[in-house]
Amino acid sequence: MGRVLAPVAALALRDKQGNSLEELRSQAGFTGALESVALSTGRFHQFVELHIEQGPLLEQEGIDLGLVTHIAAPASLRIDIEGEGGHAGAKLMPGRKDALAAAAELILALESAAKSTGAIDTVGTVGVCDVFPGAVNSIPSRVRLETDIRDTDGPRRDRVLDALHDACAEVAQRRGVTVSTELVNADPPATCDEAILAAMEASAGEAGKSAKRMVSRAYHDSLFMARIAPVAMLFIPCRGGVSHRPDEYASPEWIADGVEVLARTLAMLAG
Amino acid sequence: MGRVLAPVAALALRDKQGNSLEELRSQAGFTGALESVALSTGRFHQFVELHIEQGPLLEQEGIDLGLVTHIAAPASLRIDIEGEGGHAGAKLMPGRKDALAAAAELILALESAAKSTGAIDTVGTVGVCDVFPGAVNSIPSRVRLETDIRDTDGPRRDRVLDALHDACAEVAQRRGVTVSTELVNADPPATCDEAILAAMEASAGEAGKSAKRMVSRAYHDSLFMARIAPVAMLFIPCRGGVSHRPDEYASPEWIADGVEVLARTLAMLAG
Repeated sequence: MGRVLAPVAALALRDKQGNSLEELRSQAGFTGALESVALSTGRFHQFVELHIEQGPLLEQEGIDLGLVTHIAAPASLRIDIEGEGGHAGAKLMPGRKDALAAAAELILALESAAKSTGAIDTVGTVGVCDVFPGAVNSIPSRVRLETDIRDTDGPRRDRVLDALHDACAEVAQRRGVTVSTELVNADPPATCDEAILAAMEASAGEAGKSAKRMVSRAYHDSLFMARIAPVAMLFIPCRGGVSHRPDEYASPEWIADGVEVLARTLAMLAG
Repeated sequence: MGRVLAPVAALALRDKQGNSLEELRSQAGFTGALESVALSTGRFHQFVELHIEQGPLLEQEGIDLGLVTHIAAPASLRIDIEGEGGHAGAKLMPGRKDALAAAAELILALESAAKSTGAIDTVGTVGVCDVFPGAVNSIPSRVRLETDIRDTDGPRRDRVLDALHDACAEVAQRRGVTVSTELVNADPPATCDEAILAAMEASAGEAGKSAKRMVSRAYHDSLFMARIAPVAMLFIPCRGGVSHRPDEYASPEWIADGVEVLARTLAMLAG
């Protein structure tokens, strides 16, 4: 589960020119089996990552630093609905197995499940809805939905996933359509380490910088490092919350603040 | 309204080679203004059309002829929903304006409105659901739905259309999305002429053929001829209900039955 590739899967990959990972590794001077370079639990004592927020809150609130307490992670469920097509005029309503009407119920079921956890950090989205045959006078016979469910709390997120699975079964039964699902990924969210957070907080205070605890809703290296070491993240503001675009920007002062508090934190953690 | 082109619209059309209708008409030997060749009300006393059923009922029931009492006609409403996009992880549920969730409600609203007229002849279908941007981790910002609503009774069909319009307004208001609609077409259904039906029934009896009254759910020339003359249609069976496919088939006997009863009907109507 998750986007971490097993070595056997990584070894089977080819790039567009047909090169394997092993070929490219050895050309680049790496030796030894792929398994031998995997990071193991205990190899690092602690892991601290500095990053721009990729959101607008720190800039809007005029706060120098964000101390990340949780990193949300998505589960992605692909849902294929197979109903029965037919002419929109000739097939009467009682006998229909309309795949898009079934899909509509699942879209609303996910929205409702995500909203009803009582936690602001739960989100659920259907971003893809592909309809076949996709003609105005044809009853849809097949629909594919791609869903994204995120939370900072793994079990809470997985309860939404369970509710969506239940809805798939109920809708399939009631409407006489076939619903098949594939869990594309389900990375565990990360909870940051309290000792590192305390060190970051103290370091910000020493440097005279304001700081607030917050959640990271985007993926980070720390999400994966959390599997083998205690982690926490330090956020600095970025202009307009923009990232992964040419106009992404953090001022030299914001960067300097982040580097100073990171350095103080590492020194403090190193004793 | 309807798929009947106004002369001014027909004159503006060009084919893929850039030829206008006027150029092609004159090349084919037609003269005079386009308006002069339009059929006018009263030009024909009555209009009778013979056709394969394009459905399986006559063959299944072993009945020689169908006497068409109503020709259903579709109304097609295009619905464009504009919400607000955003990252599936970063944008929390309370602030969302998800265009696909709004679309899901409209898909179910149409299904429900079509089912609740109490008439078996009312059908409603959403055949097209195009989602933008259509990525698993993006909240849909825009959705286009194409809908098809048919009935043998015009006012009843238009009440379903009204219910869909109402749902659009209600969903737009409640979800804070913009919903715009365009009536792509709304041809009036046709009710066949009782005098012609009676003549067809009598003619079938004279010829020793079985016949039943039925509804045509597909478009026919008669739907448009009904605007200028009393019409009715005669159906013969076709194998498996199949039409518009290479394996469309009506036996010579079925065709002969149809031609005989058509001829008797025309003779009877001509006095």
